[in-house]
Amino acid sequence: MTTGQQTTPARSEAGRARELAELDARTLVHPHSVIGAPAEPLVLDRGEGAIVWDVEGRSYIDGTCGLWQCPVGHGRRELADAAAEQIAKLEFYSSFGDYSNEPSIRLAERLLELAPAGMRRVFFTSGGSEGTETAIKLARLAHHHAGRPERVVVLARTGGYHGMGGGSLAATGIDRLRAGYGPLVPGIEFLGKPHALSGDAVAADRLIAELEQRIEEIGPERIAAFIGEPVLGVGGMVPPPDGYWPRVREVLRRHGILLIADEIVTAFGRTGHWFASERYGIEPDIIVTAKGLSSGYIPMGAVLIGERVLELAEGASFLHGFTYNGHPVGAAVALANIEILRREGLLERADRLGRRLLDALRPLERLDHVLEVRGVGLMLGVEFTGGDTSGVQAGARAAGVIVRASGTSIVLSPPLVITEEQVDTLARVLTEQVEAAR
Amino acid sequence: MTTGQQTTPARSEAGRARELAELDARTLVHPHSVIGAPAEPLVLDRGEGAIVWDVEGRSYIDGTCGLWQCPVGHGRRELADAAAEQIAKLEFYSSFGDYSNEPSIRLAERLLELAPAGMRRVFFTSGGSEGTETAIKLARLAHHHAGRPERVVVLARTGGYHGMGGGSLAATGIDRLRAGYGPLVPGIEFLGKPHALSGDAVAADRLIAELEQRIEEIGPERIAAFIGEPVLGVGGMVPPPDGYWPRVREVLRRHGILLIADEIVTAFGRTGHWFASERYGIEPDIIVTAKGLSSGYIPMGAVLIGERVLELAEGASFLHGFTYNGHPVGAAVALANIEILRREGLLERADRLGRRLLDALRPLERLDHVLEVRGVGLMLGVEFTGGDTSGVQAGARAAGVIVRASGTSIVLSPPLVITEEQVDTLARVLTEQVEAAR
Repeated sequence: MTTGQQTTPARSEAGRARELAELDARTLVHPHSVIGAPAEPLVLDRGEGAIVWDVEGRSYIDGTCGLWQCPVGHGRRELADAAAEQIAKLEFYSSFGDYSNEPSIRLAERLLELAPAGMRRVFFTSGGSEGTETAIKLARLAHHHAGRPERVVVLARTGGYHGMGGGSLAATGIDRLRAGYGPLVPGIEFLGKPHALSGDAVAADRLIAELEQRIEEIGPERIAAFIGEPVLGVGGMVPPPDGYWPRVREVLRRHGILLIADEIVTAFGRTGHWFASERYGIEPDIIVTAKGLSSGYIPMGAVLIGERVLELAEGASFLHGFTYNGHPVGAAVALANIEILRREGLLERADRLGRRLLDALRPLERLDHVLEVRGVGLMLGVEFTGGDTSGVQAGARAAGVIVRASGTSIVLSPPLVITEEQVDTLARVLTEQVEAAR
Repeated sequence: MTTGQQTTPARSEAGRARELAELDARTLVHPHSVIGAPAEPLVLDRGEGAIVWDVEGRSYIDGTCGLWQCPVGHGRRELADAAAEQIAKLEFYSSFGDYSNEPSIRLAERLLELAPAGMRRVFFTSGGSEGTETAIKLARLAHHHAGRPERVVVLARTGGYHGMGGGSLAATGIDRLRAGYGPLVPGIEFLGKPHALSGDAVAADRLIAELEQRIEEIGPERIAAFIGEPVLGVGGMVPPPDGYWPRVREVLRRHGILLIADEIVTAFGRTGHWFASERYGIEPDIIVTAKGLSSGYIPMGAVLIGERVLELAEGASFLHGFTYNGHPVGAAVALANIEILRREGLLERADRLGRRLLDALRPLERLDHVLEVRGVGLMLGVEFTGGDTSGVQAGARAAGVIVRASGTSIVLSPPLVITEEQVDTLARVLTEQVEAAR
C-alpha cells in the first residue's frame, strides 16, 4: 500500500467518511483537542484556489487558509511539479557545517532581495516555532558573544503568539496556552496588549511609556531582545496603534535591545507587502517567517538576520540548527511560490480585497455584542465584547464558509487568490452568523 | 523564475560551483557554522541510493545519510510521485481541533500497527525537536491534569541529544551545545552517560544505582518523566549496557515516572527493527520519531502516545500543536516510505550490513588512539581516546566517502540500501583515514 485510498475498497462517500472518522478517533490526538474525547472530524479531501472539499464532496470557502499558510491558494500543480522535480534530483541533504544545496542558496538570495533594508543573512527552519526558538537563542548568543552574557531577558507582549516550544511558548502572551506545562524558558517579561480601539489617539503614548518604564525596572543591561508580531495574529488580528512601531524601535535602539519581528503570519503578502515590517516602518534586527514562504505546501520557515546581530555575533560558533535546515524541496517550492505571488500581483490583491471585506463587515460594529471589526490586508478580525465565538464558526461552516474562532474574536485570513464573489459570500455568511449570535 | 537553475546561464560546472559558493557565503548562516566566517561549501546536487554528487559532478558514498534521515536512500521517484499526487489534491490543511485529512489518519493507523505494544495514539510534528518539546509538555500536562502539578522534573542523560528548542535543548546532555543561550527550560536533571566499554559487566548496575539515588534525592513526587535515546546518536552511536533498559523501566514504573524514548534516530529500521524500543525491551510511555519516518523527503515527525499517558491526561485540553501537524504531503510520503522499507526488507538488511561494517572496522581497536568501535544495525561509531576527529572527516571526503565527526567519535549511518561493495569501500577508506590520524 502506498496511500490510504488504494487500500480502501470502493464505497459510498458517506461510508468512507464514517470509516475515516472512526479511525481518526481511534488513532490521533489533534492539536487543541481534549485527550480521550475526540471530536467528529471534518476530513478535507481536496482544494483549489480558495475552495476546499470534504470527503463527502461538500465545498467550503476557505476563509482562514487553514492557519494563515496559503497565500497562493490550494491545489497549485506548479508547486507539485517543483516539489517532484527536486525530490527526484536531491530530496534532501543536511545543511549543517559546510554542506549546502542550490535551491536553499537561491532562496536565501531571493529573500534578501525582497527583505527590508538591513537584512543580511538567512537561516532556515521547518516552521514558525523553530524560527522563534532560533531568534531568541541567536539574540542571546549575540549579546553573550559580545561580552554581555547578562542580557538574556526577552520582552514580549500580552496577546502575542510566537509558537509552542519551550522558548516560543514562554514568549506567548496568552495565559491559557501555557497552563499545565510547568516552568518554561525563564527571562520573558510581558508588556501590555498593543491594541487601540478606534478613537483612542493616545494608545501609542501609553504603550511607549510602559515600555520605557519596564526597561528601567528590569534594567536595559539585562535585556537581549523585544519580540512582537507587526499585527497580532492568534491574538485577534490586531493592527498596531498609529505610530507605535517606529517609536518602539527608537526606544529599543537607544538601549541596545534587539528587535525581533515575528512575521510568521504577516510576511509574503498578507498585509499587502512582502513584509509587514515595511508597511509599519519596523526596521527589525531579526525577522521570523514561515507559512506564506512556501504557502504551507512543504513545511518551511526562514529567519532573516540583520546587520546589528551579525556585528554582535561576529566570530561566534552558532551551534544550533534543526535537521531539515535548508530543505531543497521546501526551498524549490518556496521559490516557485514567491514567483506566483509576484507574477499574479497577489500583494496588491490582498490590499484591495482586504478593504472590500473590511468594508463589508464594518457595519457589524453597530451590534451591541460586537466590540470591533478590524484588519489590514487580508487579515481581519471581528471581536465580540465577550464570550465565546465558536458558535459563529460552527454556523458559518454549516453554511459552507470556514472561519476561525480565536478567543473572543472571529479571525479571517483567506488565500490571497480569493475572488470578489467569494469575498462577498464570506462577508454575507459571517454577517448572518454574527447577527444571530446574541 | 521558479528554480535557481532556470535563471543560471549555461556555464562550466566549476563556474557554477564558484557562483554558488559565493552566494552561499553572502546569504546564508548554516547550522554549526561560525558567524561571519563561512566555510567553503560542499554543494550537493543529486542523489541515488547511497551515492550523492556535488555540483562539479564528484560522487560520494553517503556514510551518514545527511543526519540519519534517509533509510530508503536518495532519489526515489516513487516518493516524488506520492508527494506530487498529494499536493495536486490537497497540499495541506490544518489539523487543529476537528480538521483532519486522510493521509494523516492512514499514517497514524499504520504507525500504531508497527509500534511496540501499549502505544495508542499519534500526534504529528515536522521534526524531532518539535517532537521532544511535545513529549516534555505532554508528560508534564498529564501529571498536572492528574492532580500532580509538582511533577515537572525531567531526568535526562549526559551525552543525550534531543533537539534545539528551549525544552529539547535543555534536556540535551552535551554542554557545548547549551553554552551562550542563557537559561533554558528549568527542571531538567542529568544522569551519567549510559556507556559501557566492552568487559564492563557492571555498567548497568552502576547506572541503575545512580538512577535510584537521584530519584531519591530529587523526590519521585517531583519527577514527570525520564527521556533517553535507546542508542545515543549525536553522543557517539553508543548502544546501551546489557540489561539497562528493562531495569530503567522497572525503576521508573515503580515511581510513577513516565518513560520517553527518543527514537528520532533509531526508529524505522536503523537498528534492524521498526523501533529500537522493541530491540531493547524498553516499553516506553511516549516515543518520539522523525527522520526515518519520511526518509527526510518531506519534514515529518510523529509522537506516539502510550496508554498510561492517556489515562493520566484523560479529559485534559491539549492546547499544543505546530502549524504543519498532520501534513498530508508528509503523511503520503511517509506511508510510501514505510512501504518501501517493508517491501525491500530493509530492516533485515540494516542488521546484516551493519554487522558486515562493524566486523570490517573492529580491527581499528588495535590502534592506541582508538578507544572503541561499536554499533548496532546501521548506526556505528569509532571513538578516539581524545582529540578532534574532523581530520578523518575531511580525509574521507577527499577520498569520496562522507562520514561525520561528532566530538571524539566518527559516526556512521548510511542509507539502509547501501550495497555490500559500498560498505566495503566505506570501511576501507575510513580505516585508512583512522590509521593515518595519529
